[in-house]
Amino acid sequence: MQSRLTCYLAGPDVFLPDAIEIGRSKKRLCAQYGFEGLYPFDNQVPVETGDERIDGVIYRANMAMMHTADFAIANLTPFRGPSADVGTVFELGVLTGLGKPVFAYSNDTDTLLERVREATPVTFDPLRKTWCDDLGMAVEDHGNADNLMIDMALAAQGHPLVRHPCPPEQRFRDLGGFEACLRQAAETFSIGAPAGGA
Amino acid sequence: MQSRLTCYLAGPDVFLPDAIEIGRSKKRLCAQYGFEGLYPFDNQVPVETGDERIDGVIYRANMAMMHTADFAIANLTPFRGPSADVGTVFELGVLTGLGKPVFAYSNDTDTLLERVREATPVTFDPLRKTWCDDLGMAVEDHGNADNLMIDMALAAQGHPLVRHPCPPEQRFRDLGGFEACLRQAAETFSIGAPAGGA
Repeated sequence: MQSRLTCYLAGPDVFLPDAIEIGRSKKRLCAQYGFEGLYPFDNQVPVETGDERIDGVIYRANMAMMHTADFAIANLTPFRGPSADVGTVFELGVLTGLGKPVFAYSNDTDTLLERVREATPVTFDPLRKTWCDDLGMAVEDHGNADNLMIDMALAAQGHPLVRHPCPPEQRFRDLGGFEACLRQAAETFSIGAPAGGA
Repeated sequence: MQSRLTCYLAGPDVFLPDAIEIGRSKKRLCAQYGFEGLYPFDNQVPVETGDERIDGVIYRANMAMMHTADFAIANLTPFRGPSADVGTVFELGVLTGLGKPVFAYSNDTDTLLERVREATPVTFDPLRKTWCDDLGMAVEDHGNADNLMIDMALAAQGHPLVRHPCPPEQRFRDLGGFEACLRQAAETFSIGAPAGGA
């Protein structure tokens, strides 16, 4: 029997009170599409880490998982501000540097410019021909969901960031965008849809 | 004559009104330490990009520059929230995935927990044994400047994130932390201090 492709599950989901249950749900969905999900929280941190710092142990475990994984699905839903969780964005970068496919979703359909505008006064500077925030720093206006490096990293791979509409109170638990990424992955790796439909 | 090592200059500096001048200052400092600075803004975007999107052109130019660079210095000063600019963090990840040395600084000396606490109510959950934000999402408490993946990526290379104190109004222009990274780089690559001291 052929072994299943492994999928690293990046996202701020690990910070949720029900992080373990969300991880199990994602792994179940992965299995339905023929993949094996690798969830960072699986790295149950040992109580006894000897002389090493616990954050160093977690870092090395996550890096090892990314090196092992065949591809990744990243949750880029805005987190504590107008942009995605920086831990997840770092991992998107690592995987891009490693040349591994990454599929990604955001449970917010607004552009970066729209979200910055909600958080702070934004004005158009006709001399610089750009929108600026309250510190005079340019705000990108390319219609992207986040910083252009993020959107373009995904677009360059041929599968753009999935912007999934969902109620605000469900934004860290709705898995519709995640499943859209699984469909992108199944198509990319030429794996059929799950038996149960979708 | 031996060619100089090239240093990719990552940071939200490109969004400043005086982005070009800041870039020139950083390149001058690089030269004083024997390095050649590569500033993303150098990628003067052509007015005529044919059918290609301008954000795609910028993405490819920055990626090419990172592949060319021998190492990088990243400005991880908090940007529009408690964490660093996601574009810079993505690039830190790419360079880590490529196995290139990265030195980094933040012009803020607080911990991530301290900054999240300033922005939103944070409470300690004794059952989960973690601090939580207003959405119940865990806030890391490792004493790091940002998400542990960021701090540990730098610590793993043997040169921890430089936390440089500076007045708030100078946080996007002060180059003291940047120069501390140049000293780290000069030591790492066994290049002497600049003739003028420092």
